[in-house]
Amino acid sequence: MTTDALVLDAAAQDLLFREARTANTFTDEPVTEEQVQAIYELVKFGPTAFNQQPLRVVLVRSEEARERLVRQMADGNKDKTAAAPLVAILAVDNEFHEELPTQLPHFPQAKDLFFSERSVREQSATLNGALQAAYFIVGVRAAGLAAGPMTGFDAEGINKEFFGDGDHSVLAVVNIGKPGEDAWFPRSPRLAYDEVVTTV
Amino acid sequence: MTTDALVLDAAAQDLLFREARTANTFTDEPVTEEQVQAIYELVKFGPTAFNQQPLRVVLVRSEEARERLVRQMADGNKDKTAAAPLVAILAVDNEFHEELPTQLPHFPQAKDLFFSERSVREQSATLNGALQAAYFIVGVRAAGLAAGPMTGFDAEGINKEFFGDGDHSVLAVVNIGKPGEDAWFPRSPRLAYDEVVTTV
Repeated sequence: MTTDALVLDAAAQDLLFREARTANTFTDEPVTEEQVQAIYELVKFGPTAFNQQPLRVVLVRSEEARERLVRQMADGNKDKTAAAPLVAILAVDNEFHEELPTQLPHFPQAKDLFFSERSVREQSATLNGALQAAYFIVGVRAAGLAAGPMTGFDAEGINKEFFGDGDHSVLAVVNIGKPGEDAWFPRSPRLAYDEVVTTV
Repeated sequence: MTTDALVLDAAAQDLLFREARTANTFTDEPVTEEQVQAIYELVKFGPTAFNQQPLRVVLVRSEEARERLVRQMADGNKDKTAAAPLVAILAVDNEFHEELPTQLPHFPQAKDLFFSERSVREQSATLNGALQAAYFIVGVRAAGLAAGPMTGFDAEGINKEFFGDGDHSVLAVVNIGKPGEDAWFPRSPRLAYDEVVTTV
């Protein structure tokens, strides 16, 4: 096993990566506020450029909000989004730079030096928000839950329905819960090391 | 501690998130091929849309390649990129869809149904490659190493110097090694749960 070279214990490796799977069905067991807080309090430490932390999370808990969200999902994602114990909308705040003076106290000038242009902010927020989305998925698994991340939806529709200020862009919608019956397809292959990693 | 609600053991929480830091200096201890392979063999299981796996990694090990890379880095990143035991260029292959017939065997039609347009592939590769970049950073930490991810560089310059086929886009450059003296700034604050997470 090449993973002998890791320091992380094997049970944690299994929990976060090797045995974790993208779930398509869930049990009825609710996902508590305490669990979501614990996930955030862990993964908030994941690094972002200039500590910009652009990720914003909307927990869809009311029936009315769930219906509004399901309408924006692609057909193949509607049923599982309607049925999951908890659904989280992961978006970025393209005006994240307003927080830099408090979030990057040793270099508050970054706000104006690097992020005065909206197009630059949008590009940076997308990249760094996606990093945070991945930390969040890892955090869901760290809580013993399965994540079902989806990108099949009407992004403009979700932005209007759930933000409406023109400053937020959805990246992904994630179903969260304990995996149910027939929760996943057989695992798809992965590219071999030599197909992905080259040395120069 | 709100992280009591997590299943992941506390030592793993510390290793991957709470005590892990973005390193700016490193010891001379080399990062081995075995370690990088172990990292990949773990984090390759992180989910991407349609199992697209767009991430490609270039390990910069020769002196000549290191010099070519350092020239493309922003001034503030040159010294640490020159000094790190290992530097990895994380990029995406915007032609990832060519692999879908083998990587998504239960739905090979996805290649043509969803990814026939280059602009769609680029957007999807950026998002999903960033997810994989975050898994990679977590994997570096799982190997007991520190990561120093950077986005301050001439992206076009790196794409030309290290790929040259017009199909790859760099996302980040990551210094990797054991943290050295004064490896990090004091930890910057993080946004509070209520600033990031809302419920509807």
